[in-house]
Amino acid sequence: MEKFEITVLGCGCALPTVQHNPAAQIVNIREKLSLVDCGEGTQQQLRRFKVGFNKIRNVFISHTHGDHCLGLVGMLSSFSLLGRTSPLHIYAPSDYESLFRAQLDYFCKGMEYPVEYHPLDTEKHQCVYEDRSMEVFTLPLVHRVPCCGFLFREKPTQPHILRDMVDYYGIPLSEINNIKAGADWTTPDGVLIPHARLTRPADPPRSYAYCSDTKFKPDLVSYLQGVTLLYHEATFDKSRQDRAQSTFHSTAEQAAMIARDCGARQLLIGHYSANYRDVTVLLEEARSVFPNTLAAKEGLVVRI
Amino acid sequence: MEKFEITVLGCGCALPTVQHNPAAQIVNIREKLSLVDCGEGTQQQLRRFKVGFNKIRNVFISHTHGDHCLGLVGMLSSFSLLGRTSPLHIYAPSDYESLFRAQLDYFCKGMEYPVEYHPLDTEKHQCVYEDRSMEVFTLPLVHRVPCCGFLFREKPTQPHILRDMVDYYGIPLSEINNIKAGADWTTPDGVLIPHARLTRPADPPRSYAYCSDTKFKPDLVSYLQGVTLLYHEATFDKSRQDRAQSTFHSTAEQAAMIARDCGARQLLIGHYSANYRDVTVLLEEARSVFPNTLAAKEGLVVRI
Repeated sequence: MEKFEITVLGCGCALPTVQHNPAAQIVNIREKLSLVDCGEGTQQQLRRFKVGFNKIRNVFISHTHGDHCLGLVGMLSSFSLLGRTSPLHIYAPSDYESLFRAQLDYFCKGMEYPVEYHPLDTEKHQCVYEDRSMEVFTLPLVHRVPCCGFLFREKPTQPHILRDMVDYYGIPLSEINNIKAGADWTTPDGVLIPHARLTRPADPPRSYAYCSDTKFKPDLVSYLQGVTLLYHEATFDKSRQDRAQSTFHSTAEQAAMIARDCGARQLLIGHYSANYRDVTVLLEEARSVFPNTLAAKEGLVVRI
Repeated sequence: MEKFEITVLGCGCALPTVQHNPAAQIVNIREKLSLVDCGEGTQQQLRRFKVGFNKIRNVFISHTHGDHCLGLVGMLSSFSLLGRTSPLHIYAPSDYESLFRAQLDYFCKGMEYPVEYHPLDTEKHQCVYEDRSMEVFTLPLVHRVPCCGFLFREKPTQPHILRDMVDYYGIPLSEINNIKAGADWTTPDGVLIPHARLTRPADPPRSYAYCSDTKFKPDLVSYLQGVTLLYHEATFDKSRQDRAQSTFHSTAEQAAMIARDCGARQLLIGHYSANYRDVTVLLEEARSVFPNTLAAKEGLVVRI
């Protein structure tokens, strides 16, 4: 299967700790890399986990609390010092654009690559990025400032050719693409071999949803049906549900309820409050509702 | 002796590496802490090396290249989240103030402690801070943007009382402060005991000079006469002197020449180019000119 994996660069919360870096993840789909959130220190984490700077094409910022975006200007400045020329696309809430531009003007004078800012309407669920192999949709979240998650979805791929059958019928290579695209094959004797006999079905499209910083929002599941991997913040355990509610965050149990109710294959939790030195309590709480749960940590790679 | 020490939080250069963090140091004089430069990730380094956030009263920024100040806004935001109420003083080049304010307004809404910005004229050598026990002077440097170093100097202290002599002459405790301040003592029989016989001289005032990011500037030594500890950038080794010249940086040899020529007691080098995985070459080059040289690394504490 084609590569589709994420790397956690940071899974901490607003307050600094020695254990965790602030929010940042790499989404790698067929070696096209997106950075999702960019907390302070992200550029150093990219180095630590050997992520090539030039492979990053798009940056998606869920919201503009410092722990999700204060690494952006330094990273862009380093890209510039290293001679980047290829464009970088920033998808971020619309109200940040003017300050972002002012910071670039001040800190990244004379940079030679274009930075395109795509302002997001965080209240909508809509496609904001598309290429040949994938689409990215916003996921409206509820936080103290405008905030959205992101759903990365592979486009449907073509069925797999059954090599044995192709050889058996002596089908020329020039026909393979037609058959992949749905055509049947007629032998020189006029016998029709149906498409389904020459192929096995395409892999089902995989998807990754990143839900950062949100109050428990049960109606999220309507956007997440059957998602392959769901990242959902789990800032607190359920004994601190009041605190979660008042700060517009979720508990580990709530994250797991979303995963269960949308039929996710796997759940990844993160964005731990600085109070948890050991996140086992959060992981166990989530697993009691949704067993196939992983706890994010810096450097974790999850294949989707 | 009263505490006077520095802690290196970061000694790297503009490009991120796994070995080094960008520039930041703590200067601790009698438990009053100043932060000098504040590169990205400084707040996490403060946690790592167990520096109490609330002890920091002043922040001195040498210049506004990103690797020297991009950690400021995140750190101030964390101070706010943690409920700081005591004022914080920022000493930084004047042209950064408006962008700094704009960032605070955006990222630190509702913060409850005052932040006072003291704009620096980086071309002057002048006292910019003074309290009961110390003074801080700017040191004009030559870099690609306005840039100055900082000289921290203890104020002269009083001589030490010789406890034995005080006991011998039966001098009452109420007289001790007068004697420290220079008074002689007359015994009940009318014999004058001179001040010098009752005390030993005060410790000579100690000083720390921080010279970050500068082209080789031999006239610096006039401001640095007899400095106790000199930190001087050493971005390159002497085989790359042309590169140092063109980027307005110094070589390790040049740093050592400054230390030798100003009569420093000790030299600390740092701000290593990302090309040096091992800084032994820089340390040896400096030591060949000025033997009492240390190489900065994250977490290093130097007592002055």
